[in-house]
Amino acid sequence: MSTINVDAPIITLVNVFTVPAEHQHQLIDLLVRATDDTMRHLPGFISANIHAGLDGTHVVNYAQWRSEDDFKAMLGNTKARGHMDGVSALGAKAEPGLYKVVSTHPR
Amino acid sequence: MSTINVDAPIITLVNVFTVPAEHQHQLIDLLVRATDDTMRHLPGFISANIHAGLDGTHVVNYAQWRSEDDFKAMLGNTKARGHMDGVSALGAKAEPGLYKVVSTHPR
Repeated sequence: MSTINVDAPIITLVNVFTVPAEHQHQLIDLLVRATDDTMRHLPGFISANIHAGLDGTHVVNYAQWRSEDDFKAMLGNTKARGHMDGVSALGAKAEPGLYKVVSTHPR
Repeated sequence: MSTINVDAPIITLVNVFTVPAEHQHQLIDLLVRATDDTMRHLPGFISANIHAGLDGTHVVNYAQWRSEDDFKAMLGNTKARGHMDGVSALGAKAEPGLYKVVSTHPR
């Protein structure tokens, strides 16, 4: 289970994918496989959390990494890049961003 | 503290804001105030989690609501709409999406 904390010394990747509706499920399957087969075994990986857009045309990966350097090293990993090619092959577009949690508000 | 679970009967709002770098801090302050003053008191609010983009020009609100109907009711709330006008006044653009958690992957 992932938790969201201001004080955790981590970075957060929010990757918003836009995808043709007929490929949303395939994109989710691809991201699940990429995470289980590759990402979670890389140094600095903390968690990934895949979200399906209710509109059918978006997917979000909310992922946590130990550091920006670990994330950048992943981008250079050959297997990780192969998964990204699979994203493009589905006609999907990724818009990744790196973030720091600054404020949390439970009810 | 917010947690991300597949089984929780909630919806997730991922709102990605693009903002001129000189207004990133003001946008974060506005979202914190909007959450504390208004959002957290509305029916169905579970949590909000504000994230600052490391690039200086993005902000993400990762928020949890009990249902899509609760979220839509919020959109019609006069005070909530006032906060959104404040976002526009900072030259920021919001791209909100509603999601369901489908898969979580701790290390």
